[in-house]
Amino acid sequence: MPKFYFEDFSPGWTAEYGPRHVTREEIIGFASQFDPQPMHLDEEAARGTMLGGLGASGWHTCAIMMKMIADGLLLDAASMGAPGIEEVKWMKPVRPGDNLTVKGSVLGSRASQSKQDRGFVTFLWEVYNDRAEKVMTLVCPQMLLRRNPGGAA
Amino acid sequence: MPKFYFEDFSPGWTAEYGPRHVTREEIIGFASQFDPQPMHLDEEAARGTMLGGLGASGWHTCAIMMKMIADGLLLDAASMGAPGIEEVKWMKPVRPGDNLTVKGSVLGSRASQSKQDRGFVTFLWEVYNDRAEKVMTLVCPQMLLRRNPGGAA
Repeated sequence: MPKFYFEDFSPGWTAEYGPRHVTREEIIGFASQFDPQPMHLDEEAARGTMLGGLGASGWHTCAIMMKMIADGLLLDAASMGAPGIEEVKWMKPVRPGDNLTVKGSVLGSRASQSKQDRGFVTFLWEVYNDRAEKVMTLVCPQMLLRRNPGGAA
Repeated sequence: MPKFYFEDFSPGWTAEYGPRHVTREEIIGFASQFDPQPMHLDEEAARGTMLGGLGASGWHTCAIMMKMIADGLLLDAASMGAPGIEEVKWMKPVRPGDNLTVKGSVLGSRASQSKQDRGFVTFLWEVYNDRAEKVMTLVCPQMLLRRNPGGAA
């Protein structure tokens, strides 16, 4: 049984997950498979790019964050998935050896108008490295079952 | 030398990449690593979820699309990366055996005000399966070097 439902999330809710260590091997492995641009693949080639050295694909950072949120929250929640992403900002490179932390907060929530069993919670997820630099932010509306369908939202 | 620069992209530009076959094994493999929710991991468990059967993690679809765009365009372009993503919509599940096609178009472009050597192009990427269903759309501003820095944009 899920521990967390729609009603458990409203502005003021916060959470923190991690740290998650990121290795050079996995940065290059993910990039080889999904984002084979020089700045994600090779130290030497990366030096002359915007990143100024090897950095993870932004999609890799998204995927690592997703795993942290799944393990930390969603697998214990009555989650029905997300219809999409409202915004992603990649602010700093994620480097080999970084330890990432995810901070979560709730921007807003609303019960579904058409279906009484569910609601939407808009989460802000902020990813930090161990130098306290914000490396990514992501705004995502999550669909969750209500503990009390049709009750006061 | 790059074939494509900032000046080569304006509204009216279109492209298509793919098809890219998606297997059950890679859907489960990606999910195990990054998005271990039942609907992405197990046929039986997925039947009772929103997806009504096994479907790829939305992040997996993003990563597959990224590889198609890198191979089809970005590795031949004077790309400086993307500062983020404006919007992602996951519209239909991506199923084992699907063959994905990516259609690209340009929503707008602007030369950088502060740096004469670059500009931003906002791309719309639409992903279709082989049943002609749109499974995902993504709006992404891409930073590119100008062929003629400081010239007419």
